[in-house]
Amino acid sequence: MAHLMSTSCSIKISSSYRPCGQPLNQDRTVLPNSFTIKTSKSPFKRLVSKGQRAGRSCLVLATAAPVSKEVSANPRSGSDQSPNDSSKPQRVMVIGGDGYCGWATALHLSNKGYKVAIVDSLVRRLFDHQLGLDSLTPISSIHNRLRCWKAITGKTIELYIGDICDFEFLSETFNSFEPDVVVHFGEQRSAPYSMIDRSRAVFTQKNNVIGTLNVLFAIKEFREECHLVKLGTMGEYGTPNIDIEEGYITISHNGRTDTLPYPKQASSFYHLSKVHDSNNIAFTCKAWGIRATDLNQGVVYGVKTDETSMHEQLCNRLDYDGVFGTALNRFCVQAAVGHPLTVYGKGGQTRGYLDIRDTVQCVELAIANPAKPGEFRVFNQFTEQFSVNELAALVTKAGQKLGLDVQTISVPNPRVEAEEHYYNAKHTKLIELGLKPHLLSDSLLDSLLNFAIEFKDRVDTKQIMPSVSWKKIGVKPQTVPAN
Amino acid sequence: MAHLMSTSCSIKISSSYRPCGQPLNQDRTVLPNSFTIKTSKSPFKRLVSKGQRAGRSCLVLATAAPVSKEVSANPRSGSDQSPNDSSKPQRVMVIGGDGYCGWATALHLSNKGYKVAIVDSLVRRLFDHQLGLDSLTPISSIHNRLRCWKAITGKTIELYIGDICDFEFLSETFNSFEPDVVVHFGEQRSAPYSMIDRSRAVFTQKNNVIGTLNVLFAIKEFREECHLVKLGTMGEYGTPNIDIEEGYITISHNGRTDTLPYPKQASSFYHLSKVHDSNNIAFTCKAWGIRATDLNQGVVYGVKTDETSMHEQLCNRLDYDGVFGTALNRFCVQAAVGHPLTVYGKGGQTRGYLDIRDTVQCVELAIANPAKPGEFRVFNQFTEQFSVNELAALVTKAGQKLGLDVQTISVPNPRVEAEEHYYNAKHTKLIELGLKPHLLSDSLLDSLLNFAIEFKDRVDTKQIMPSVSWKKIGVKPQTVPAN
Repeated sequence: MAHLMSTSCSIKISSSYRPCGQPLNQDRTVLPNSFTIKTSKSPFKRLVSKGQRAGRSCLVLATAAPVSKEVSANPRSGSDQSPNDSSKPQRVMVIGGDGYCGWATALHLSNKGYKVAIVDSLVRRLFDHQLGLDSLTPISSIHNRLRCWKAITGKTIELYIGDICDFEFLSETFNSFEPDVVVHFGEQRSAPYSMIDRSRAVFTQKNNVIGTLNVLFAIKEFREECHLVKLGTMGEYGTPNIDIEEGYITISHNGRTDTLPYPKQASSFYHLSKVHDSNNIAFTCKAWGIRATDLNQGVVYGVKTDETSMHEQLCNRLDYDGVFGTALNRFCVQAAVGHPLTVYGKGGQTRGYLDIRDTVQCVELAIANPAKPGEFRVFNQFTEQFSVNELAALVTKAGQKLGLDVQTISVPNPRVEAEEHYYNAKHTKLIELGLKPHLLSDSLLDSLLNFAIEFKDRVDTKQIMPSVSWKKIGVKPQTVPAN
Repeated sequence: MAHLMSTSCSIKISSSYRPCGQPLNQDRTVLPNSFTIKTSKSPFKRLVSKGQRAGRSCLVLATAAPVSKEVSANPRSGSDQSPNDSSKPQRVMVIGGDGYCGWATALHLSNKGYKVAIVDSLVRRLFDHQLGLDSLTPISSIHNRLRCWKAITGKTIELYIGDICDFEFLSETFNSFEPDVVVHFGEQRSAPYSMIDRSRAVFTQKNNVIGTLNVLFAIKEFREECHLVKLGTMGEYGTPNIDIEEGYITISHNGRTDTLPYPKQASSFYHLSKVHDSNNIAFTCKAWGIRATDLNQGVVYGVKTDETSMHEQLCNRLDYDGVFGTALNRFCVQAAVGHPLTVYGKGGQTRGYLDIRDTVQCVELAIANPAKPGEFRVFNQFTEQFSVNELAALVTKAGQKLGLDVQTISVPNPRVEAEEHYYNAKHTKLIELGLKPHLLSDSLLDSLLNFAIEFKDRVDTKQIMPSVSWKKIGVKPQTVPAN
């Protein structure tokens, strides 16, 4: 029960901070400046009593004290899945719901009327502390985030703090929350992090693979109808010299034909962990009848969604460092602070990209159109392809419009990857389900650049350059970034 | 340093046991009946002083006290790699060298003149204790085995007892032994074991994947020229409806062509762990220039090799139980004790098979013809294909010749697998390197059946039936087989 949080505490909201229950740009109302987190069982009898092992529950439910009149402030309440609908709302467990994609998704689903619980160990925040990194944006604690969400929308997002590699903890969350859907973002998600040293490589594979195995066992044991929506990555495919299909490819060979899993060529211990997951999930779909959707996601950019924009305490993280920062977000921050855009090697590396507003939309589409029992479904989740050089050119142009002097430098590629290659990946299945892409436009780039400029005083330029080398990784533990 | 064995002890050989230093069927000579294992550093100065961290060495070297005149009893001493050759013998670390394939391989390589060290945690013996299983054949302790080998051949096989998932231990073995080649059998190798319960599934993937990651890091850090010979399994491929190639397949798709890793469809957490390994190794070959050979081995049958036949203390294990026993060996034991041959389901399941004498030959061929730096080479290591029904028919016929009344029953298939399917797997690369297969003949079957009959009083018939179900696996720990 190492993950049990059993304390009660009061948190004072400082007067310089905009109180929750108050969307941005609206008149303030008087709100209590003190909230109480309670984790004793009594206020949450319904939740705890549902668990098969209620007496041993390690539930942590973080919510604000009741705040009236906020529901009307929610512009999208009463949508498809509202608890006020006659049909019972689906219960969605978002594992990793405190992270970049997970947080945006949890809010979006809650806003859409799903009953949401976040399961998170908060280890992503620990990684920042350990490596001396920080989000460009100031992010609130998960507890404050959820209190704010409750205050603004009247919607409660339950919170279970713990490690899914601890099966006892995971069992408690399943038996308490009884999910209809599990959206699984809860993995170490950085390729460079997995290449820092041996212990991070081993951690990444152990954490990701065992966590996912535990989720599969929990579904089989406790919620066999539950739909698993698992975040994979386009990086599982590598850069083959043929078109990339969505999960499977039909092969004719020596006069016979079969449709087989698309061959994978991952190029970091992180990407490999996702390949391992995909193979494990595929097996359990076949052997146990698990229903699963593997979302092979491209590189996500942007920071704002409808929900995270409602209040500064809901603001999402934005990583620009060499370990967790991804290409387009990193370039925008570099442009904002006058740092040259760092193109790794020749810059011909081409990948699929998507706006974070499409991440949340895609997950919702996967939930609304579930896989069948026993089906292992794979969607390639991105909207457009760009090379690194193309991205640099787009950011340069957008920066110039804003009066920024944007330079580009080529830095030695810290990765082992093809720098010029064929790349054509299919991505039609989510479109067929109704995805309306937010394509990368001038206005989005302007907005993202302006956002980066707004927070540029928070930038630590020492975090920008790549500090992790695929070839130099060693067995000695690295306690700080290797730069 | 949990794996350090630092005691000295004397072991008395009971008078009823044939002393070592004496091949079977030869006149006995007088030998000391007391041997001493020493693990203090002084007698092994060379070994310990070679380690970079000699002061912290956890080396365990088990060898007999000097026994004269045995070298001449070795019929194959002075072969290719003999230490008496002018060229320095290659140093081969056999991880998992106390197991079924590992033991036969370690002896074979030692006999061929390679300088051999066994690295083993001995956990395979623990599995038997925990599950109430036992080898058909009585097997000596690893310490007695190695003393006997020394006594008979004059050749020392070094022994490092510890867990390769413990990187500190593995580092010590690398720095002490300085391998030129690592032959890696050191994994949990039973599909049913991996399907007993959640904890065994997780153990299997964690143990196998992390152990192999550690070996890759150790090679990169300490012995970058070292050739990794890794045991995979034909089960990684599953049963596709097209021909199975050796590791890679050339695919033409939408007018373009590439040669990609052959798609894998493994069907147990064990088989999946081997797929994960293959993907991890392929990446490190590309990123770090590791040289590796992945031996996708078929089902191994037989028990005797030239070396294990030299003395009863060198006898290999023979598993016939529902967890570790493999098809043909299990059938022979069933026939010997009058138990019906247990065909799972329809019996059309077809796989590649090979004699254990070919296992040792294939490993030797892979060592003698190493992969190039950066090359990830895959060989399909089997000699013939059989369906389960074909094997049952062969054993029935051979049993009848020996006067046995052999029946066959179909039992519900505990696995999730196709019971009738196309199967055609290529296996030419080892033949091209010079493999001379021991095909399954009447005489081999006679010999294996007679061997089973010799030990039939040791059979525990309760171990025979399958006790592990692919579909019924749950999260509750199973402390005994589920029958």
